[in-house]
Amino acid sequence: MKKLWGGAFSESTADLVDRFGQSIKTDLHFWQEDLIGSVAHARMLGETGIISKDEAKILIDGLEKIHEEGPRGLDIDVEDVHTAIELRLKELVGDVAGKLHTARSRNDQVATAARLFLHNELLVVLDLIKSLQGVLLEQATIHKDALMPGYTHQQHAQPITLGFHLMGHFWGLQRNGWRAERLFELANYSPLGAAALAGTGFPIDRHMTSQELGFTAPIPNALDATSDRSFILDALHMCALIMIDLSRISQELVLWSGREFGFVKLHDSVTTGSSIMPQKRNPDMAELIRGRTGRVIANWVTIATVMKGLPLGYNRDTQEDKPPLFDSLGKIKDSL
Amino acid sequence: MKKLWGGAFSESTADLVDRFGQSIKTDLHFWQEDLIGSVAHARMLGETGIISKDEAKILIDGLEKIHEEGPRGLDIDVEDVHTAIELRLKELVGDVAGKLHTARSRNDQVATAARLFLHNELLVVLDLIKSLQGVLLEQATIHKDALMPGYTHQQHAQPITLGFHLMGHFWGLQRNGWRAERLFELANYSPLGAAALAGTGFPIDRHMTSQELGFTAPIPNALDATSDRSFILDALHMCALIMIDLSRISQELVLWSGREFGFVKLHDSVTTGSSIMPQKRNPDMAELIRGRTGRVIANWVTIATVMKGLPLGYNRDTQEDKPPLFDSLGKIKDSL
Amino acid sequence: MKKLWGGAFSESTADLVDRFGQSIKTDLHFWQEDLIGSVAHARMLGETGIISKDEAKILIDGLEKIHEEGPRGLDIDVEDVHTAIELRLKELVGDVAGKLHTARSRNDQVATAARLFLHNELLVVLDLIKSLQGVLLEQATIHKDALMPGYTHQQHAQPITLGFHLMGHFWGLQRNGWRAERLFELANYSPLGAAALAGTGFPIDRHMTSQELGFTAPIPNALDATSDRSFILDALHMCALIMIDLSRISQELVLWSGREFGFVKLHDSVTTGSSIMPQKRNPDMAELIRGRTGRVIANWVTIATVMKGLPLGYNRDTQEDKPPLFDSLGKIKDSL
Amino acid sequence: MKKLWGGAFSESTADLVDRFGQSIKTDLHFWQEDLIGSVAHARMLGETGIISKDEAKILIDGLEKIHEEGPRGLDIDVEDVHTAIELRLKELVGDVAGKLHTARSRNDQVATAARLFLHNELLVVLDLIKSLQGVLLEQATIHKDALMPGYTHQQHAQPITLGFHLMGHFWGLQRNGWRAERLFELANYSPLGAAALAGTGFPIDRHMTSQELGFTAPIPNALDATSDRSFILDALHMCALIMIDLSRISQELVLWSGREFGFVKLHDSVTTGSSIMPQKRNPDMAELIRGRTGRVIANWVTIATVMKGLPLGYNRDTQEDKPPLFDSLGKIKDSL
Repeated sequence: MKKLWGGAFSESTADLVDRFGQSIKTDLHFWQEDLIGSVAHARMLGETGIISKDEAKILIDGLEKIHEEGPRGLDIDVEDVHTAIELRLKELVGDVAGKLHTARSRNDQVATAARLFLHNELLVVLDLIKSLQGVLLEQATIHKDALMPGYTHQQHAQPITLGFHLMGHFWGLQRNGWRAERLFELANYSPLGAAALAGTGFPIDRHMTSQELGFTAPIPNALDATSDRSFILDALHMCALIMIDLSRISQELVLWSGREFGFVKLHDSVTTGSSIMPQKRNPDMAELIRGRTGRVIANWVTIATVMKGLPLGYNRDTQEDKPPLFDSLGKIKDSL
Repeated sequence: MKKLWGGAFSESTADLVDRFGQSIKTDLHFWQEDLIGSVAHARMLGETGIISKDEAKILIDGLEKIHEEGPRGLDIDVEDVHTAIELRLKELVGDVAGKLHTARSRNDQVATAARLFLHNELLVVLDLIKSLQGVLLEQATIHKDALMPGYTHQQHAQPITLGFHLMGHFWGLQRNGWRAERLFELANYSPLGAAALAGTGFPIDRHMTSQELGFTAPIPNALDATSDRSFILDALHMCALIMIDLSRISQELVLWSGREFGFVKLHDSVTTGSSIMPQKRNPDMAELIRGRTGRVIANWVTIATVMKGLPLGYNRDTQEDKPPLFDSLGKIKDSL
Repeated sequence: MKKLWGGAFSESTADLVDRFGQSIKTDLHFWQEDLIGSVAHARMLGETGIISKDEAKILIDGLEKIHEEGPRGLDIDVEDVHTAIELRLKELVGDVAGKLHTARSRNDQVATAARLFLHNELLVVLDLIKSLQGVLLEQATIHKDALMPGYTHQQHAQPITLGFHLMGHFWGLQRNGWRAERLFELANYSPLGAAALAGTGFPIDRHMTSQELGFTAPIPNALDATSDRSFILDALHMCALIMIDLSRISQELVLWSGREFGFVKLHDSVTTGSSIMPQKRNPDMAELIRGRTGRVIANWVTIATVMKGLPLGYNRDTQEDKPPLFDSLGKIKDSL
Repeated sequence: MKKLWGGAFSESTADLVDRFGQSIKTDLHFWQEDLIGSVAHARMLGETGIISKDEAKILIDGLEKIHEEGPRGLDIDVEDVHTAIELRLKELVGDVAGKLHTARSRNDQVATAARLFLHNELLVVLDLIKSLQGVLLEQATIHKDALMPGYTHQQHAQPITLGFHLMGHFWGLQRNGWRAERLFELANYSPLGAAALAGTGFPIDRHMTSQELGFTAPIPNALDATSDRSFILDALHMCALIMIDLSRISQELVLWSGREFGFVKLHDSVTTGSSIMPQKRNPDMAELIRGRTGRVIANWVTIATVMKGLPLGYNRDTQEDKPPLFDSLGKIKDSL
């Protein structure tokens, strides 16, 4: 029965298979995190005597050289960013590059880079949330006495002030900041040293790498360390909640900027006109934020659906975790 | 244009409209939380002198009587559980029942009951998580030396022990417990006193009710207090992550109990046979958990989709928040 | 390793397991379709000589008696509606009831009832679509000259007439009717005779039952007949598209009935007032339709997620297919 | 209140706004369909005398020249592919290029290109489905007597043949082909001539363009023509069903290629090895298909969520319809 399915893939040239499995376009996003993780691993290998201190130094110098060169120094016609970095390292330092693999597998390497990446992104998200909160607070102060209708069922209910209304959004963002912090707290454990799924026989020091990389502690169970993607779902959930809050602001802007409401006049920079209808000021940015919320919600669905029913141990399905994460983080960063 | 759409609903008798709007079948779940919230509100009204202390006592006694009678004492042929309780209170204490409405709207009342309900459910969930962790820990200890294959790509990779594998699931549950605690921490703020959307002119004491009900503090902004459903999305996210973890265990049980793997023999109580094929031991419970994970994932989608683009202020759409919440919580309680 | 997981379910009494597996509350919806399918099966068994014609007559008479008694004659404290009917049949006709099992499994029996049920529901949906189209057409005719703004980006773009606008919705519904018809066309094949998954050795006549039940033809492959749930996803997709169209109408009604637009005044029967704010006319029905669209979308997600990655052959996971189907069909019937 | 939200976007340079609104990376996929639609429009403008026949010829020659040059001739640093083509046309034929806008808006232009694109893609999908069916049929014939276990509940139930099993998948694909055909049938109506939302005062001939472009007929209502995206949801639904069926095949391949089952040995070209564990043959392609099914399901969710509650008339939100469509179609084409 050997070639049963060979036929099914007969048109699938090696090229299609390669392209299908390729992830470098997305994982190039964390080229820096991969380098940082490798530096910590190399240093630990040297400190523990698993490789010599000289070898460690060569590896670290090579990795830092790659960092200086930036992502443009990498060959992106390979499977993933980790392979691209390995190839460049080999060009720079020769065969000793292979020693970086000692006591490490692609599984724990990728999981480490993903967590470091998330960490860095969360810092950016927190800054953006605070910045938008600052604008809301400022505007709420200016408009603290500006009367407007308060709505229930989208019908006039009671008079409120614009300041009060804007502060409603302020507090929603506050909770999202809280979520970003807690998510960081929960995700910030080190998978490095878990190897493929069962740890390694080498006398590694997981606490050393965990500490150098700023993690709280190593993840206790190696199988869990390589199988867990729940921190990515947490991040996608947080992104969805942020976009939902922004979509609520956007919906108000779309309505308020219409002729019937006429509450706000949006700045030219965030509207577009129309050649046929020059009087128009279309709230495109608000509409796009509202529309993209659909995708950010769906990104959570992607990974929830991928993870359902997956047995423990690395499964290639989880390669799919990165595009939704990058996409959601990218969208909330743009939208905030 | 008055009756434009009347025609569209011409077949829709008043009965259909009533049934369409009815939520008592689902919100009966929190009859107790509604009573507790009302008791705190009545006491505060008395303490602050908004109503007399005697009136407050009559209201509280009536509410406690309803609590004693239990949900069977309520007329369930009404719109929602809050109305059912009001009607019963009026029967018991007469017109003074109407004073319970003072300085409170259905909007903050419902939001308060929902948060109290979630609080109580989370305690149950935490207990069930710990209980399953206890079983895993015990079995992991017993089987700490039992060799089994470790899988990557669902292919044999390296030998591990069953104890090690089970502990992988233990740590996943641990994170879910952590999530339940953080979710409680974030949700545990009091919306009571926010009234319809803009607070109230009465000299209420929001800190008094917040404290009596065990909340950390009142929610600062009344519009936010009545518009926010993100704590429900947090809960549905947590439920989804728990079910995803259980679906992963279930998938392993389904595979391991099959003839090809033959790792485990499931207890009669969680399998079914077949009249035509008496040799079979079908892992029905594991399959059902795996299948129901689909619904628990979709429950999150429901509310994410409902909330997207909703302007601030109460919208009746959010009545839809409760069935998914009850359903998800019910399913994880059964499954755990 | 026998009782490994027994412990995990130690608190799970037999009652919980029973309740967890019970589906009668949902599948009671198709008690009639189950009876009709059984009548056709019994008649075929008699005609082909697999059982005697007298036995077939006894079975058919018993099933028709159950039909006359209605669902209230059934014991609903059992696993599913099929079991309830079997038990009642045994009470009515004695041991010959068991012969109904000949050459049939629960798997093809359930799949047959589900397809018959969908058929009947689609006829109702088509009638409701046509009825709403009739109202739209009538109103569009009345208002064919009534000017209103046409919107792009929810900003005034060009003047149109209300009649033109309403006809936009008319054509959306027309497509949904088209979808309902095509869905029926694709789903209307008979799984009866597929037995558990591999057909049966008895000399059954699948064409006879297919014809009696109004199906186009038997499904060619028995494994496919019992494993396929794509017709349910088709139905849930159609339900979602109908609800999305209704949500768009609803959103317009919510906006148009607000003070800013003031285009329509909704009939009292579909609005609610407010005790605190008596001037209000809240468009509750439109809001509820808009909100419930979230759930109908999520119902599709449930089954898509359940079916992903399921190997062929009956899996208990698919028991989950019915609640979303009933829920979506119920919601569109109410909403239309 | 003019600049209320200006501040919120203060860091958002014009560049961010431009990038946020840019869609050329995705809509470059249908550069050909845009050209074809424009050629038909230009010819009709000439035939009806709205522009002169000479002008029409100049426009058509210019558009055909752009077609010859291919997409590399376009400036991709603009908002969308339509703008890129307009700019190139102006370079080629001068100011007469502007006449192509006559009696057409971006709204009907984009809707037309999207439907033509879908048409062409469906032909490819149908070919791929047939090709995979051919492989299944061939293998089923070869293995028509090869015994294997038939499963229910993923437990051995009854012996079947591999040929019978493979034909189960064959029929699932057959239904998907049926769906693709019906989807084409429903989507194949021409939106061209609907202009922004209300048609145009020019004496255009919608039947002429509809016929030249191979559509069945013009869409009757212009508002519907520019607001409808249900054909995209139909396409995403079909893609999801195809991927779900492929994920079921993939799940079987993953299991069957494992050591416990050992039913199949996958060809080297669709597996990967492991440097640490050279004995492994990982079924990466099957895992990736299974994983990507999650995204294709989520793509449907994206658009369902975007469309819910959108009033009729063009809304910028629907710009989001294209990435999921291209992504889903791309994934099923690769996977098939």
